[in-house]
Amino acid sequence: MGAFVPPASPSGESRTGRPAAAPRVKDAALTIPRGVAQVDFQSNYWTGLIFVIALFAGGWQFGVFGLLGTVTATLTAHLLGVTWDRVSMGLEGFNGTLIGIGLVLYLGASWMTAALVVGGAVAGGVLTAALNTVLKPYDLPTFTAPFCVVTTVVVIGAPAFERVWAGHPDTPPPSAADPGTALSWHEFWQGWFSGIGQVFFQDEWYVGLIFLAGLAVASRLVAATALAASLIGLLVGWWFGAQAADLGAGLYGYNAVLTGIALTGTFVALSRAGAAYAAVGAATAAGLTAGLTVLFDAVGGHTLTWPFVLVTWVFLAAVPIFSRIRRAA
Amino acid sequence: MGAFVPPASPSGESRTGRPAAAPRVKDAALTIPRGVAQVDFQSNYWTGLIFVIALFAGGWQFGVFGLLGTVTATLTAHLLGVTWDRVSMGLEGFNGTLIGIGLVLYLGASWMTAALVVGGAVAGGVLTAALNTVLKPYDLPTFTAPFCVVTTVVVIGAPAFERVWAGHPDTPPPSAADPGTALSWHEFWQGWFSGIGQVFFQDEWYVGLIFLAGLAVASRLVAATALAASLIGLLVGWWFGAQAADLGAGLYGYNAVLTGIALTGTFVALSRAGAAYAAVGAATAAGLTAGLTVLFDAVGGHTLTWPFVLVTWVFLAAVPIFSRIRRAA
Amino acid sequence: MGAFVPPASPSGESRTGRPAAAPRVKDAALTIPRGVAQVDFQSNYWTGLIFVIALFAGGWQFGVFGLLGTVTATLTAHLLGVTWDRVSMGLEGFNGTLIGIGLVLYLGASWMTAALVVGGAVAGGVLTAALNTVLKPYDLPTFTAPFCVVTTVVVIGAPAFERVWAGHPDTPPPSAADPGTALSWHEFWQGWFSGIGQVFFQDEWYVGLIFLAGLAVASRLVAATALAASLIGLLVGWWFGAQAADLGAGLYGYNAVLTGIALTGTFVALSRAGAAYAAVGAATAAGLTAGLTVLFDAVGGHTLTWPFVLVTWVFLAAVPIFSRIRRAA
Repeated sequence: MGAFVPPASPSGESRTGRPAAAPRVKDAALTIPRGVAQVDFQSNYWTGLIFVIALFAGGWQFGVFGLLGTVTATLTAHLLGVTWDRVSMGLEGFNGTLIGIGLVLYLGASWMTAALVVGGAVAGGVLTAALNTVLKPYDLPTFTAPFCVVTTVVVIGAPAFERVWAGHPDTPPPSAADPGTALSWHEFWQGWFSGIGQVFFQDEWYVGLIFLAGLAVASRLVAATALAASLIGLLVGWWFGAQAADLGAGLYGYNAVLTGIALTGTFVALSRAGAAYAAVGAATAAGLTAGLTVLFDAVGGHTLTWPFVLVTWVFLAAVPIFSRIRRAA
Repeated sequence: MGAFVPPASPSGESRTGRPAAAPRVKDAALTIPRGVAQVDFQSNYWTGLIFVIALFAGGWQFGVFGLLGTVTATLTAHLLGVTWDRVSMGLEGFNGTLIGIGLVLYLGASWMTAALVVGGAVAGGVLTAALNTVLKPYDLPTFTAPFCVVTTVVVIGAPAFERVWAGHPDTPPPSAADPGTALSWHEFWQGWFSGIGQVFFQDEWYVGLIFLAGLAVASRLVAATALAASLIGLLVGWWFGAQAADLGAGLYGYNAVLTGIALTGTFVALSRAGAAYAAVGAATAAGLTAGLTVLFDAVGGHTLTWPFVLVTWVFLAAVPIFSRIRRAA
Repeated sequence: MGAFVPPASPSGESRTGRPAAAPRVKDAALTIPRGVAQVDFQSNYWTGLIFVIALFAGGWQFGVFGLLGTVTATLTAHLLGVTWDRVSMGLEGFNGTLIGIGLVLYLGASWMTAALVVGGAVAGGVLTAALNTVLKPYDLPTFTAPFCVVTTVVVIGAPAFERVWAGHPDTPPPSAADPGTALSWHEFWQGWFSGIGQVFFQDEWYVGLIFLAGLAVASRLVAATALAASLIGLLVGWWFGAQAADLGAGLYGYNAVLTGIALTGTFVALSRAGAAYAAVGAATAAGLTAGLTVLFDAVGGHTLTWPFVLVTWVFLAAVPIFSRIRRAA
């Protein structure tokens, strides 16, 4: 996880063991926006703050529940004794962010959902630690797998619990109301930006644009990669004949965006072969989206960021076998 | 697996290589009750004998098929050359016990089921060895995963085979006949004890009480933990609004019981933080029960002890990351 | 993977670094039939050529798409820098062969399917590398897992894509048109040979016979093992009461054939205990076929060679625990 260089080095005071209460409080507070930014692999807290603004622009509940999840997950990790290196970089927060957003999206804003977000973020923290142990021999990060597992289990299990399922919103795909595969110009450009916002399950194009601005603050390369990968995902879906309304909502873009960023400079060293590798990875993630959506539909689950997690694990695990591709230092 | 201290050390005779036929026969015979006791992580053969009595109290078929599975699995492991350390402690028997009970429950008592129990116990023995190889780097035991895999596969595949499926009993959940979420006092206290009996798929409260007595013979701490964990599972299910009849049958308790025992002193060192960790684990296992039940229903499978296996693997694998939690010596 | 001895050692010229264009071209060309032969663990290119003839005997599309997949997968691995040792033995080709055959079987012969075969073979090459990294600590080969994953994902996802799903053939099991469990003599002997052909998803008995001839060219032991394992699979299915038409099409044989060959001399050392182990493995694979078929039916997937992959991984991973069974040198 050496790819996440902190934007500011720790103060000299804390290194020498002297009291440094103020910086520590600031450091602790900054773990939260950094946690939100880590959903897109960034540790820049300005990026995280812009992401929080984007969440509130998408709906107050996404901002509130996303922050609740981030705080709970970060606190859980700290209380259980995870090293401060990981906690301060936000690496223990981002799965909590997504658990908060995912559960409020599929179960609705209620006190019961808030309790589930707290419980889910605690379970996600334990799962993060467990996956880190299992994946360490292969030098793979957990990515958003803890979020995917916790949210899948809760959403699939929810109908069994009367008090959890009561008042849940319907969340059919956009194509349910508007079927057809002819892609309009509006759907095309809106889907391009929405693909970036759908990383946080936001389907409005202007919310995607705010997220893009947040990425650009952290790194222009990352922002450009996100745009390119969202386009790849959109084109793959369109070429295979996916539903136009789903393409327009960015549903084929967000897994490509995450895969593209992960494989372009973040975990794979930049090179011509590396860029081609990342493009193939982004296209694979978009293609996998359809298969997993059908699979999860059968049991009432959702695709979430499973395609990104699975494809990126496979593409990173394969690197040592391929002499032309190198892991980032 | 150092947690399983044998109740009696091997005789001096066998150590020096002299003939010791009688103790060996006794030792071999004791592997069977120990195998049954290991379902609840105990190696005390008195505990195993009480468990066998409880099985017969639940129904002759559970006792007979459970013993058939235990004997077959233990013999398979011995014939294939597994070390006597593992075999004598009953560690090669308990998955066979559960395979016998699970298959007779879902397929009915018949000669065909008996043949499947023998075949399943052999396959379970091979699977135990394979999982031990895979899990060794992470220092995780197999738990009841071999039972879960074999029983899931056989039960899901059974409808494809006319001679296997003929005469299978219907096994709907209790809530199918008696829906509703208002928990009566009777359901509450019966569910508390049934949660302990459901570890062996027994739904009568007095059978659960016999199992509790067996646990108390081995260790009062384990018996108290089982009671506490069954209560946690019951309360989690009730709070989320699960079906009262399912709660009363102990369906939300047994995975919490197994998880609670595993994380309290057995594999995690006793401490305040450890007890809280075990309580969170037990609650997580109860919550996971609903998700997995819905998932398996879609394909005709059953929940079995999957929630316990998955949650306890995750909670144990996470221990090295958490400085406040320690593995048992 | 030391079991695959090349039929001809590399020429002396290439060892000393002198130009050896002609042998290299021949070597490169031979990777293709060797890739096809590796579906059955053989590296003999004559075997591969006979297999290609068998595929064309089954239908031109199986030959053409199978070769397309083999070439694409082999080229992908070579371009990404996989060692020539693996590429020249055909070990990077066989998953591509099966991806080509599987996709044309379930999606129909079209340019879109050809594009999917190319994309699938590239993804399969990356997945092969990733699985090799993950399985190396356990000394397990990937087997046909990359084929199974890619084909499952594409076939399950296909209905979401209008241009992919258009014109797909219906592929119900033979028993759908001809239900019943009374096995005729014709079904018995045809199923015996078809079990060998179904490794390549060919259901005609004479195609199975050509594949058997190809195996006999490589090794009489392998051919005899294939016959014995196909019979075991047939008998297991028949004894449990499987549909006679499915038995006659070899659907219970092919996973037993692959498991039998893998566990008899290929990866497990030949011995009496080893032969019994292989027979139990072949029977387990046949039994597992039914469970996985029901499971995949629920989501529109197919059984493919999943039973072989899962059973053989388990039986090989268990070897170190069993003192009577040894891995092949």
